[in-house]
Amino acid sequence: VRTSRPVSAVAVRTVASELFAAQGYRGTSMKDIAGALGVTAGNLYNHVPSKQHLLFAIMDNAMERAHAALERALAGVDAVSTQLRLATETLVLDFLEHPAEITVCNTEIRSLEEPNRSIIIGKRDGYAARIRALVDRGCAEGHFFVSEPRVAAFAVLELGNNAKAWFNERGELSAEEVAKMYGEFALHIVGDGYVHN
Amino acid sequence: VRTSRPVSAVAVRTVASELFAAQGYRGTSMKDIAGALGVTAGNLYNHVPSKQHLLFAIMDNAMERAHAALERALAGVDAVSTQLRLATETLVLDFLEHPAEITVCNTEIRSLEEPNRSIIIGKRDGYAARIRALVDRGCAEGHFFVSEPRVAAFAVLELGNNAKAWFNERGELSAEEVAKMYGEFALHIVGDGYVHN
Repeated sequence: VRTSRPVSAVAVRTVASELFAAQGYRGTSMKDIAGALGVTAGNLYNHVPSKQHLLFAIMDNAMERAHAALERALAGVDAVSTQLRLATETLVLDFLEHPAEITVCNTEIRSLEEPNRSIIIGKRDGYAARIRALVDRGCAEGHFFVSEPRVAAFAVLELGNNAKAWFNERGELSAEEVAKMYGEFALHIVGDGYVHN
Repeated sequence: VRTSRPVSAVAVRTVASELFAAQGYRGTSMKDIAGALGVTAGNLYNHVPSKQHLLFAIMDNAMERAHAALERALAGVDAVSTQLRLATETLVLDFLEHPAEITVCNTEIRSLEEPNRSIIIGKRDGYAARIRALVDRGCAEGHFFVSEPRVAAFAVLELGNNAKAWFNERGELSAEEVAKMYGEFALHIVGDGYVHN
């Protein structure tokens, strides 16, 4: 164990995400994280003040990344159908590229203390509100047909959430191909461009 | 703390599910579970030999319940579209009625030891295969239109998985109403009865 090796914030978050995803926040100690990084617990505490601080940093980073990716994906795109498709593709790609972090985000809201919990829930709900706004706009503009926009928006958000669990099983499809399929599913869910028989 | 109170297997599973869902399997001790049941750890061990045994019992019970509910839902139903709709409604209702157990099933496969792990994964994959068979049949019969039946089947399975997270927030919709909406979403995803513009 090297005690004085410099450790990047990204490395700490990555290793901690993987341990939290594999054995839970409560089931993981700072000593476990330090061990996986090859440093002493004392050295780790020089980088992060607490395990709670680290959990918040992981989730906050994931939320900020998701918001920024959505921003980039929708920049310069006007049509609401294209926006919803691109938003879904972007979200599913993020899910597939960061499986451990997404598992932590999905399962460890329970372990956040205040005010961390309210901050993360606020960012998560803010993301959901942006998707909901797309669904509402599509309905208002006559492109989408859904009975309960709130439920449809949640369904779109959750759609690809677990794709990471099966995606690598066979490797027949690229992440981009999977993301594109989910983009189509999202449009199906909101009844975009379809006429019922 | 009463040491000799009889404790039902259902009560043990229910209380343990809630604790595992709230703080993770690894973060929960048999003493925590005994405390929540109001018995001593020694008394709890008279009912279940180990925490691992209990985790397996929770997941196995949930899997058997899901398979049995699917069986009942599809009995006597011939049309594949109706079957997929009913299968989805049944699954979402189960998700909404047993939120703690579903959280455990979703997050604690990682904590199962062999052979428990293989048994549960086998039952989970068996359930997925039944949904996949419905999607394949719908495609073969010309009712469904999907480019990758495997991906569509996973999307249908995951669709309502997290509905429990928002369902009770406002209480505007009953569980049955939510389940019916997801049943419709499933048909949308597989392109049932729709003609593209």
